[in-house]
Amino acid sequence: MAVLAMDLGGTKLSSAIFSSLGEIVTKEVVPVNGMKGNEVAKVITTAIQRQLANHAIKSIGISVPGISRHKTGTVWAPNIEGWEDYPLANEIQGVAGRIPVGIDDDRACSIFGEQWQGHAKGCKDVVFLAIGTGIGAGILSGGNLIRGSQDIAGAIGWWALQKPFIAPYSNCGCFEYYASGGGIPKLTNDFLQRDATPSLLRNIHSADITAHQVFDSYDKGDRVAVMIIQECITFWGMSAANLVSILNPEKIIFGGGVFGPASRFIDAIKAEATKWAQPVSMRQVSFERSALGPDAALFGAANVALSKLNNNA
Amino acid sequence: MAVLAMDLGGTKLSSAIFSSLGEIVTKEVVPVNGMKGNEVAKVITTAIQRQLANHAIKSIGISVPGISRHKTGTVWAPNIEGWEDYPLANEIQGVAGRIPVGIDDDRACSIFGEQWQGHAKGCKDVVFLAIGTGIGAGILSGGNLIRGSQDIAGAIGWWALQKPFIAPYSNCGCFEYYASGGGIPKLTNDFLQRDATPSLLRNIHSADITAHQVFDSYDKGDRVAVMIIQECITFWGMSAANLVSILNPEKIIFGGGVFGPASRFIDAIKAEATKWAQPVSMRQVSFERSALGPDAALFGAANVALSKLNNNA
Repeated sequence: MAVLAMDLGGTKLSSAIFSSLGEIVTKEVVPVNGMKGNEVAKVITTAIQRQLANHAIKSIGISVPGISRHKTGTVWAPNIEGWEDYPLANEIQGVAGRIPVGIDDDRACSIFGEQWQGHAKGCKDVVFLAIGTGIGAGILSGGNLIRGSQDIAGAIGWWALQKPFIAPYSNCGCFEYYASGGGIPKLTNDFLQRDATPSLLRNIHSADITAHQVFDSYDKGDRVAVMIIQECITFWGMSAANLVSILNPEKIIFGGGVFGPASRFIDAIKAEATKWAQPVSMRQVSFERSALGPDAALFGAANVALSKLNNNA
Repeated sequence: MAVLAMDLGGTKLSSAIFSSLGEIVTKEVVPVNGMKGNEVAKVITTAIQRQLANHAIKSIGISVPGISRHKTGTVWAPNIEGWEDYPLANEIQGVAGRIPVGIDDDRACSIFGEQWQGHAKGCKDVVFLAIGTGIGAGILSGGNLIRGSQDIAGAIGWWALQKPFIAPYSNCGCFEYYASGGGIPKLTNDFLQRDATPSLLRNIHSADITAHQVFDSYDKGDRVAVMIIQECITFWGMSAANLVSILNPEKIIFGGGVFGPASRFIDAIKAEATKWAQPVSMRQVSFERSALGPDAALFGAANVALSKLNNNA
């Protein structure tokens, strides 16, 4: 018995055949960068047809980077042109026929993946804090996914963590502005332009600076990189503290492209969070890195597929 | 058919007989200020015995100011001496006999009350933001109460909203330090002592300044009061925005002793929140004051009693 899991990202579509035991049988990755909404849908449906031709697939689960509207079967993906309210469920059912299809957002899929095959096994109250180009959180409370009234819950890149409000927060949110994979290079460039502190990062063309290069420079003791990353650790600690205080979770799991390299700071983040959070909740929470790394949402999509199968049985 | 609802506060115990239609039949209030844990428990059990003698009570619901541990039936109330892990369920069952008893915390009871007989009727995703001496949130997500792994969820008085961390935050949390009924008079006193700005509040002995007096001075255009309250509005707006971004609720209901007088600022709070929050979630949320005011948790306790009855039926 096999299911097809698909994780749509901003630049690529990962597809994998999973066994019911949670093992990846085969996996393929195809690019979608620069494509419009209809083209992305075509890549997905073509991949499904190809997999259906080669495998006995019982159900399909798909992770989308944005919002999956459960009542309508439409999706919204801010980084895919034409996907404001795209009827993805319909498109896919067109090629899947009677095979059940489940679609969920990447925040939800990431925590489902960790709960199924990662560090959230056995947890009912747990958060996947995804820090990549953007920031979001997949949240289980009492074993239930927090979806919100319009399926937009977990958008904590918008968290207000430093007043006063300034205009650039409008584009992505205050937390994401300071401490995301998108924010780190931007803040680094801004600093290098307005300040004369020597830095290894001045050897890189400003348009080419990435969060990973700032981490590399941090390792070499670069003063600018150290200052930028320390600021991030403070914001990550404050936001983790705020998750602990509101949700009283067993675990916070750090994932996304930044964790990754920032995983080495999890102890420092916990020390920062301990200053701020509700102390009783803080004492019994653990902070961990994702067990599944870049595949967390793909595993979650497989879990969505299996759940769909069980519900339809 | 009648149920007994009790709302234990820091200074008083309110008890009411409710009809199954959600109407208060009788209500009494007895003081508990300055009492230790055993004495408070005695006041509760005595009130129950008195009510049982006079009414045909089918079940009992009790709201406690702190944490109600569902697995053990014990409660923790930070402001009642000796109630770190007090076996309240046992004590009450001792006088209630076979009548079912439900205990929940005041955050949970407040949102249950509003959902049953107040402004959260029909809502599945809704927050009761309680701002009184302390700050907490009662949260429904998809119709489920967010309890957390140790029943401590909703402790958002501890939210980190302004860095760097300073030592006084350790006592109550950053948000509560700045924008609670306890924080407002303290910050006002601190300001008056270090600054010479003329203020009506200097006519009040510093130990006697309350949040309500700061609101009164705001109405008279007092510069210090205006500055303090504007700062509160910013923090209330940021925290409401953060609730919107993480939970995507239909409504945020403002209650507690401060809302009350601060209810007139709800439009200003919404304007502040709109700057910060996830924009799609923000467009469809409404901000309202509590319909039940100081009785929200009492109504919720009645609802807990009725739920207990339905579960046992």
